[in-house]
Amino acid sequence: MNFIVSELIKKKRDGFALSDDELHFLVQGFADGSIPDYQITAWLMAVFFKGMTSAETLKLTYEMKNSGEQLHWRNLDPKLKTGFFVDKHSTGGVGDKVSLILAPLVASLGFTTPSKIPLKIPMMSGRGLGFTGGTVDKLQSISGFNMFLNDHEKVHALVESGYCMMAQNESLCPADRKLYSLRDVTATIESLPLITGSIVSKKWAAGVENILYDVKCGSAAFMTDFESAKTLAESLVAVSKNAGMKAKAIITRMDEPLGALIGNALEVKESVYILKNEFPNENMRRLAMPLRDLCVDFAVEMALLADPTLSQTGLRESCYANLENGHAWELFEKNLFTQGATSDWWNQLELAPILVELKAPRDGYIQKIDSRHIGIAGIEIKAGRRKSEDTIDAAVGFEMLCAPGDSIKKGDTMVLCHLRDKAQFDLIQDNFIEAITIADKPIKHHANLRLAEVT
Amino acid sequence: MNFIVSELIKKKRDGFALSDDELHFLVQGFADGSIPDYQITAWLMAVFFKGMTSAETLKLTYEMKNSGEQLHWRNLDPKLKTGFFVDKHSTGGVGDKVSLILAPLVASLGFTTPSKIPLKIPMMSGRGLGFTGGTVDKLQSISGFNMFLNDHEKVHALVESGYCMMAQNESLCPADRKLYSLRDVTATIESLPLITGSIVSKKWAAGVENILYDVKCGSAAFMTDFESAKTLAESLVAVSKNAGMKAKAIITRMDEPLGALIGNALEVKESVYILKNEFPNENMRRLAMPLRDLCVDFAVEMALLADPTLSQTGLRESCYANLENGHAWELFEKNLFTQGATSDWWNQLELAPILVELKAPRDGYIQKIDSRHIGIAGIEIKAGRRKSEDTIDAAVGFEMLCAPGDSIKKGDTMVLCHLRDKAQFDLIQDNFIEAITIADKPIKHHANLRLAEVT
Repeated sequence: MNFIVSELIKKKRDGFALSDDELHFLVQGFADGSIPDYQITAWLMAVFFKGMTSAETLKLTYEMKNSGEQLHWRNLDPKLKTGFFVDKHSTGGVGDKVSLILAPLVASLGFTTPSKIPLKIPMMSGRGLGFTGGTVDKLQSISGFNMFLNDHEKVHALVESGYCMMAQNESLCPADRKLYSLRDVTATIESLPLITGSIVSKKWAAGVENILYDVKCGSAAFMTDFESAKTLAESLVAVSKNAGMKAKAIITRMDEPLGALIGNALEVKESVYILKNEFPNENMRRLAMPLRDLCVDFAVEMALLADPTLSQTGLRESCYANLENGHAWELFEKNLFTQGATSDWWNQLELAPILVELKAPRDGYIQKIDSRHIGIAGIEIKAGRRKSEDTIDAAVGFEMLCAPGDSIKKGDTMVLCHLRDKAQFDLIQDNFIEAITIADKPIKHHANLRLAEVT
Repeated sequence: MNFIVSELIKKKRDGFALSDDELHFLVQGFADGSIPDYQITAWLMAVFFKGMTSAETLKLTYEMKNSGEQLHWRNLDPKLKTGFFVDKHSTGGVGDKVSLILAPLVASLGFTTPSKIPLKIPMMSGRGLGFTGGTVDKLQSISGFNMFLNDHEKVHALVESGYCMMAQNESLCPADRKLYSLRDVTATIESLPLITGSIVSKKWAAGVENILYDVKCGSAAFMTDFESAKTLAESLVAVSKNAGMKAKAIITRMDEPLGALIGNALEVKESVYILKNEFPNENMRRLAMPLRDLCVDFAVEMALLADPTLSQTGLRESCYANLENGHAWELFEKNLFTQGATSDWWNQLELAPILVELKAPRDGYIQKIDSRHIGIAGIEIKAGRRKSEDTIDAAVGFEMLCAPGDSIKKGDTMVLCHLRDKAQFDLIQDNFIEAITIADKPIKHHANLRLAEVT
C-alpha cells in the first residue's frame, strides 16, 4: 500500500494513531531509503509531542525487529532445542558491570541447581555513550576476547559456558540503528515509545524468550525520577509481553556508583573479585556487597521468569553458593576462553600508570556520592564517550574507598584515581568536590538498591 | 558563533526561545547546506508545537530576507527617489483577481488625485497552489506579458504606469523558498510564526515600505475561522512593523467566490471589465460589484498607509472616478505594453472551447455558494494546481450566473463551465451540487466582505 508521507506526519502531529499498514509503510520506506530522513525526523518530533498508542509502539517495534537478521536459537543446534533463553537489559548507570557477573551466575543455576532447567543467556550488548558504560567496552579490555561471533561460535559458547557475550552487529535491527542516529541529532531521544521500540526490537530480534529489565533511576540514570522510570518499566514490560516474551522490570537506584570500581578494565577486575569471592582488601569487599546482592537478586528473577515453579529461596541459596564454591567463576573462565581470551589475559589487563589520591577536605560523614558527577569525570578522562565516535581509554578509572554513611577524617583517601597523567586530575577534581557531600552528623544511608518491580 | 544544532532543537522543543545568534546560526547553516535538512525539519515540528516569540519571528524573518537579493527602489533611479512604495498581500481565495485591478487603481491615485503623492506599487506575486489562484498564473495568460524583469524594466514600468508586476524569482529569500518546500512535505505549513516569516520576509526583501494584508477567512481560505485569521493578521502586522514597514491588515470573507469569473484567463477578463467599466451584460456587472468595492476599499487603505493625512472620502471618490473615467484602465494598458504584452493580447486570450451549463435542479433561493468546492472543481479541470509541479490550463474556468440571495427557477443556468472537453463536466458536477445550496424560502445574504481590520 502507498501513503502520502506528509499526511502520515500530519496524522501523528494532530494526535491520531497510525494504522499498522501506515507504520509498515513508514518504517519500511525509511529503512530502504525511499522516504527521506527529513520527513522521518519531523515524524519523530511529532511522536515526541504526541506519543504512540501501545498498538503503534508494538508495530514500530515489530517493523524494526523485522528490518534485519533474526536469531532463532532452538533451530541453530540440537543441543539448544530444550534451552530457556533469558537475558537482562539495563538502562545503564555508573559502575554498572552487572552483566559480567550475572551471565555466569544465571548460567551456573542452569548447570547446577536441583531444578536442572537449562538456562541459556545469549547476551547482546552495546557500546557505552555518555557516562553510562557499555558491556562491550568493558569486555574489550580483555585481551583476545571476541564479541563478534558467527553462529557456530555462539552455539559453542552457549553449550560450553551457558552464555555468550555478543556485540550488537550491523545486521540486527538496522532500521533501529538508523533511526537512533537521527534521534540523537534531533532531540528526539527522550520519547517513551521510541525508547521502548529501540530496546525491545533488539531483544526480540535476538531471540530472547525471557527478559528482565533493570530500569535505573537516579541522578546518573537515563530516568532521573521514579515516575518516569516506572512509566518506562511498564512500557518495556507491556510491549515485550505483546511481542510474546515473558518480561519483568526491576527499578533500581542509580544515585551513587554501583560497586567500588569505575572504568572499563577496573570493572572487569571487580567482576572477577565477586565471581572468585576474592578481594584485594576487606574495604573493597564491603563496598562490592550491594552490587553482589543485586546480581543475585537479578539471577533469581531471571530463573523465575523462565520457570515460575522454581523455589525463590532455593535459587537464592544456589546463587550465593555458586559465587562461593567457584561454579560461577568456572563458567566465566570457560566463556572467556571459548570466546578467544588469551591465557594471560588477567596479567594483560592494562591499568593506567598514574595513581592520584583524592583526600577528604575535613572530618565528617559521607552523606552522598553523586554518580552523575563521577560519570562526567569519567568522560573527562576518556573512560566514557562524549560522542559515539569517540575512542575510550580502558585503563583509566576510579576506585572508591568510601560509601555513603561512612565516617571520614580529614586527609583520608576517599577515591583513588587511575589516570594517564597527572594533568587529568585537574580536569576532574571539581567533579569530585561536587559529587561527594560530607555532613557533620552521622547519617543513615538507605542501602537497598531495589525500589520497585513491574510485572 | 558555533552552536550544537541538537541543543537548539531541544531548546525549542522544551519551549524556550532561541537567541538572535542561535537563529542566525540555524537559518544561515540551513541556507548554506551546512546543517542537514533532517535537523531543520525536527526544529520546524518543534516550532509547530511550541511557537515562537515575536523576537524570534522577527529574527527568522530578518534572516530569510537577508538570505538573498534585496531591492532598494529609491537607489535604482532618480525618478523613484520620492516614491511611496506600497503593496498588498492576500492569503488567497477562489476568484481572487484583486491585484490585477488594485495595482492600476492605486497607481491612478498617485497620478491624478489632488494629494499628488507618487504612489508606486512594486507588486511581487507567486504562482497558485491548491484552489487559491496565483497572480502570476493569471497574468501569464496574457500573450507576451513578462513578469521576470531586470532592474531597468522594473523602473520603466514603475515610472510609466506607477506599478510593476513581478514574479518571485530564485534570488529573493532563497532560505524561505527552501524552508517552504520542506514544510510542505513535513506537515509544518500551519504554523503562525513560520507563515508570518515566509510572507513578511519576501515583502521586506522586495523593498516594500507600506503593506496592506488581505487575510481571507472562510471555507476556501487558508484560515477558515475568524479567530485564526485575526491571529495571523495581528502577527503579520506586528512583524512588518517591527521590520520597519507601515502595515495594516483587513480580514475579508472567503465563503463564496470573489466576483463572477473563476479561472486564469477568465479572471483577466473580469479585471478588464471592471477597469473599463464595461460588462458583457448587466448580470455580470451586478455580480462583479462586491469585488469592485473591495478593490476600492483596499486602494483607499493603501493610500492612507502611505500618507495618513489624505482624505478617506476624497480617495474613495477618486477611486470610483478613475474606474469610470478610464484612468485606471489606461495605466493597466500602459503597464501591459511596458511589460511586453502583444498588441492583440485581448483577442489572443484563450478560452476553453466547450461550454456546459449547470442548471438549477429546482425552484428556490441560493442560500450558499461554497467557494471551497468550487476551488476543488477548479483543480479537477486544471485551473489550479494540486502539486506545485503541475501545469495549469489558463483557458478553463467557471462563469457564475447567480449569487447568494438570488431566487432561481428549475432549469435556470446557475454556472457556465468553460471546459476542454465534455468529460470534464463529469469530474466536477458533484462539486457544484455540494457547493450550491438552494433553500425554499428567501434568505437574507450578508454581502459585506470586510469583517475586521488590524492596525
